[in-house]
Amino acid sequence: MTGTSFGSDNHAGVHPDVLAAVVEANTGTVPAYGDDPVTAEAERLVRRHFGPTAEVFPVFNGTGANVVGLQAMLRSFESVICAESAHINVDECGAPERFLGSKLVDVPAPGGKLTVDLVDAARWGVGDPHHVQARVVSITQSTELGTVYSLDEIRALSAYAHERGMYLHLDGARIANAAVALGVELGELGSAVGVDVLSFGATKNGALGAEAVVVLRPELAASMHFVRKQAMQLASKMRFVSAQLVALLSDDLWRRNAANANAMAARLAAAVDGAAGVTVTDRVQANAVFALLDPRATAVLQQEFPFYVWNEATGQVRWMTSWATTEADVDAFAARIREVAAGFA
Amino acid sequence: MTGTSFGSDNHAGVHPDVLAAVVEANTGTVPAYGDDPVTAEAERLVRRHFGPTAEVFPVFNGTGANVVGLQAMLRSFESVICAESAHINVDECGAPERFLGSKLVDVPAPGGKLTVDLVDAARWGVGDPHHVQARVVSITQSTELGTVYSLDEIRALSAYAHERGMYLHLDGARIANAAVALGVELGELGSAVGVDVLSFGATKNGALGAEAVVVLRPELAASMHFVRKQAMQLASKMRFVSAQLVALLSDDLWRRNAANANAMAARLAAAVDGAAGVTVTDRVQANAVFALLDPRATAVLQQEFPFYVWNEATGQVRWMTSWATTEADVDAFAARIREVAAGFA
Amino acid sequence: MTGTSFGSDNHAGVHPDVLAAVVEANTGTVPAYGDDPVTAEAERLVRRHFGPTAEVFPVFNGTGANVVGLQAMLRSFESVICAESAHINVDECGAPERFLGSKLVDVPAPGGKLTVDLVDAARWGVGDPHHVQARVVSITQSTELGTVYSLDEIRALSAYAHERGMYLHLDGARIANAAVALGVELGELGSAVGVDVLSFGATKNGALGAEAVVVLRPELAASMHFVRKQAMQLASKMRFVSAQLVALLSDDLWRRNAANANAMAARLAAAVDGAAGVTVTDRVQANAVFALLDPRATAVLQQEFPFYVWNEATGQVRWMTSWATTEADVDAFAARIREVAAGFA
Amino acid sequence: MTGTSFGSDNHAGVHPDVLAAVVEANTGTVPAYGDDPVTAEAERLVRRHFGPTAEVFPVFNGTGANVVGLQAMLRSFESVICAESAHINVDECGAPERFLGSKLVDVPAPGGKLTVDLVDAARWGVGDPHHVQARVVSITQSTELGTVYSLDEIRALSAYAHERGMYLHLDGARIANAAVALGVELGELGSAVGVDVLSFGATKNGALGAEAVVVLRPELAASMHFVRKQAMQLASKMRFVSAQLVALLSDDLWRRNAANANAMAARLAAAVDGAAGVTVTDRVQANAVFALLDPRATAVLQQEFPFYVWNEATGQVRWMTSWATTEADVDAFAARIREVAAGFA
Repeated sequence: MTGTSFGSDNHAGVHPDVLAAVVEANTGTVPAYGDDPVTAEAERLVRRHFGPTAEVFPVFNGTGANVVGLQAMLRSFESVICAESAHINVDECGAPERFLGSKLVDVPAPGGKLTVDLVDAARWGVGDPHHVQARVVSITQSTELGTVYSLDEIRALSAYAHERGMYLHLDGARIANAAVALGVELGELGSAVGVDVLSFGATKNGALGAEAVVVLRPELAASMHFVRKQAMQLASKMRFVSAQLVALLSDDLWRRNAANANAMAARLAAAVDGAAGVTVTDRVQANAVFALLDPRATAVLQQEFPFYVWNEATGQVRWMTSWATTEADVDAFAARIREVAAGFA
Repeated sequence: MTGTSFGSDNHAGVHPDVLAAVVEANTGTVPAYGDDPVTAEAERLVRRHFGPTAEVFPVFNGTGANVVGLQAMLRSFESVICAESAHINVDECGAPERFLGSKLVDVPAPGGKLTVDLVDAARWGVGDPHHVQARVVSITQSTELGTVYSLDEIRALSAYAHERGMYLHLDGARIANAAVALGVELGELGSAVGVDVLSFGATKNGALGAEAVVVLRPELAASMHFVRKQAMQLASKMRFVSAQLVALLSDDLWRRNAANANAMAARLAAAVDGAAGVTVTDRVQANAVFALLDPRATAVLQQEFPFYVWNEATGQVRWMTSWATTEADVDAFAARIREVAAGFA
Repeated sequence: MTGTSFGSDNHAGVHPDVLAAVVEANTGTVPAYGDDPVTAEAERLVRRHFGPTAEVFPVFNGTGANVVGLQAMLRSFESVICAESAHINVDECGAPERFLGSKLVDVPAPGGKLTVDLVDAARWGVGDPHHVQARVVSITQSTELGTVYSLDEIRALSAYAHERGMYLHLDGARIANAAVALGVELGELGSAVGVDVLSFGATKNGALGAEAVVVLRPELAASMHFVRKQAMQLASKMRFVSAQLVALLSDDLWRRNAANANAMAARLAAAVDGAAGVTVTDRVQANAVFALLDPRATAVLQQEFPFYVWNEATGQVRWMTSWATTEADVDAFAARIREVAAGFA
Repeated sequence: MTGTSFGSDNHAGVHPDVLAAVVEANTGTVPAYGDDPVTAEAERLVRRHFGPTAEVFPVFNGTGANVVGLQAMLRSFESVICAESAHINVDECGAPERFLGSKLVDVPAPGGKLTVDLVDAARWGVGDPHHVQARVVSITQSTELGTVYSLDEIRALSAYAHERGMYLHLDGARIANAAVALGVELGELGSAVGVDVLSFGATKNGALGAEAVVVLRPELAASMHFVRKQAMQLASKMRFVSAQLVALLSDDLWRRNAANANAMAARLAAAVDGAAGVTVTDRVQANAVFALLDPRATAVLQQEFPFYVWNEATGQVRWMTSWATTEADVDAFAARIREVAAGFA
């Protein structure tokens, strides 16, 4: 298999500027566990985006960011309402249940997006000791299905939650892609629209391995240093995690990386949609393209380009682009898709 | 504060060869989560040291390595016997209890080292449902007190454990320092002496942030892919974690780094022991020096060089050296220690 | 409110023979925690029903029985497939998630009953570390919706499970009602149809407070004494829990009690179905009647007879009968239902 | 073995008045889960003792009472300081660690009693994310070693705790024995001496199986209904648990039962202390007698009277008395002890 992977934005490497920042951070001895100047700079930059009272907790990966962030808001008898397709529900091997001890109440959600009506139907048994108590609504932005919540949609969910003493959590593993898709700043996806805690995703955006829990309500942050440590997500040489955040939040690198990823997804969709044997199934908003292919075409293509089948029953496949995907990558892949798909059309 | 830190081997940066390996790994798209050639190479190298049946699970940090490794051997009603001073007992914010649900039965252990007699006294209530069932003995090598278990000492513990259906776990956050101190290969600290699961520590040895759980009994490894994921310790872009392991296990870099750290500790101890107002309290075996100082001397020195007070009651301090500590660093620090301590002698 | 409760079979008291057995067990000192002759007799009686290799673990309540029983089969990264309406999913305040650390994968199930197709659709991601691994199928017999699995339906589920290395769990909080409904012995609902672990429900069947985990595969029972204790479900004066089980399993009391409950439900359904303003919505198989009423009628009736609204959206109500419900109770309630419902028809 | 058991106060049966109360509660249908008049009466009686703001949560057993009570005060990164000999530390199979996810920091405590100095030495690392944060001091009253904290000793501990934002928990599995030993009312062992949450033990005091969590700070009680349910400790037919509490708290039955148990222990100690081959090792304050016997004497006696060896190394044995122990029981046992011990003196 020699082609560029369209399997995941995790298949991409590290943006050179991020690596350069890691190298640059490698000077002399500094305190461990975050008490270093690079982490201070990362915190400063995150706060510049998300507001001066944001508390920032760098962690290793997306699972850790989501679980640590949710723990800020939850006791074990309280539940999280999320989309059935949410990463926390299907792709973290039960890490939330294991660590939090909490139930995830998952809801079939068209396009991977919760709505107030969906959430409201899943919130019941309030005050009844037999039932878990809904405390957090968790949304993914952009979603696992490549869709993007509008600012109004998020505001509606946070208003609903806050009126009921609940919190809104945002899994931002691809928050940069969402911001670019919406044409907004990162901070417009935070407390501005009522989000209480979010996972700021850097890994898929061009980092080596770095995420941050951003706590937007100061009263929720008090115990987070302990929670992060007990959750095994405290880096000893944290400067090298923080350096990645610094790089992405400097010179709008986060935006440029996400913009490339989104543009390449759009380019791919445009290049293949409507071709014989190819149906792009969803409007491409961020950096994912979902399409229907004949399974035989899929099999041929997967020998050349890594990507995943999303739904075996329907033959739907998922193609992801990243900060590193080039026009040449897309064009080569699109050409082969058209060619192969036509053979089974 | 301008001096080199002697506070922790975590205060050091990354060895240039490790960084170079990370940079080198940054080529093109590869599968995520460990299905990549760099991880395959890391596994091969670990197996070259620890034996062909060793199973290797790279993780982010030491807390993760210990908790994931212990989970391979434990059910929640089973307990871990460890030294009172063990890192898992006092420095992981309760992560083992939280994730494993298991009790740590801690034992006051002179020099931070368990013995068969100490373990035997802590193992009781076998078969009684009211008592946790001792299943794992966990030792740290080198210990938190800078001491090193001899091969015979480890063999005695593993023999004791295995005769009783128990396992031996080795927290090897500083396993390289121990191997160098003993003049043995890494693998001689594994199944050769009866260790069943160990944490292979790379971060303190010169990595950016990488450890590995090494499972030395194949039957314990079957579920570890799931355990690691549920424990939030599965890296998406794992090639960059694995590259660090590759670098340290190539060209004996692990050995050179540990040898430097150990030599610098010995140099420091030799330079200050017996000086007016300084008493080195323990035989220096690895990369830690423990000493008694007048607290006023400590206060002065801490304004120039970062290090920690180990025991406020006695005035004992801890000085750690690392792969990066230079002779000049040591000599400058030792000179100031002698100078300042003399003033309070 | 002066009428008999139709709210729950938990609203009934204790059958006199059960109380007599408790009183009779109160003679002299005996060992605690189950090492007593009454518990031995309870075990003997359970084994007479469920087979000579059944292992019996008396516990306090249904939540405990289900959680302890599930723990016999599960590690935390493994999941339980259950009906969305399952008691373990909606009525135990997240106790399974908290104690087991496992995800419940819940499936909308018509009539509260899982089928092989439903289970198969919920079982995916096998071998993928990102996904919880389906290990247990849990069914409730009789179900929360008053329906009963046939022996063939259970056999189909256990065959499906066993072919895939999975287990079948049966929540038998109302197993006696199911056995009576099917006209079978209790044991025919155990290993005879492939059930691996079941909760034997005594409380709703006329006990004061007693359930038992029945482990039908000996290899799953080895650690259960520890699991039960760690799950806080080990009674010190266990003879008084066991005496309840003895009473119900002697002289077919379990059957007589369940038969009364089922007959009273049938009598109630017959008396009101088709009356003006009343629609019995499901075939009454065990001791629950579900019906549609005008909410105003419900409000009036609830001032006289305790019972619960099952579905506020549709106006569906649930009426439960018990071992203690009399024909006079039913007739008085039915008369008022007809009377009140007619007023809103 | 025909003699009365001196093995445990759990070996005794149920006081007839308690059984009578259970029988009396068995009238008609009542709401489940505590919304019944018997539970209301139990709450009223507990409040009469422990104060009008006490919140009362009946549970099944001592393990449940301790774990649920501790959960009122703890988050998982917070720890409990307790005596090494504490029941929660050695006799609950790790239930606290499993359910709470918290570390128990156990302290060798002479006579089973914590002191301010012992607690203070165990409380360290405050504010350091690497360390569990000490939040609760847990004492047992009377202790596992048959000793009793004075009111002043408890006050000193609660003052220490409260000054540091910590709480004081009292495991009162034998609180009645302690109150009688001190000649005080139950309530004098509650908020009057600064206890924040306590386990009120009824089972050993003559109940069938009942305990209650008593929360003495209203702000800690808000979530306890959910915690109890998730901890599998919510009884469906709660009236029968509550009836036991009502009986013991009526007509001073709790006091009479405890007074008998204590008197019988004193009688036993007096009858054997100083006899040839018998040394009573501790001052008998409650209902336990600890003595040194020749192991051969112990072996002979255990064939006639059940009791436990407490310390195999020293030959120390434990004899427990209960509400049901009679003077004749004691005299018969004491006579045999003297007789048998003399043979090995």
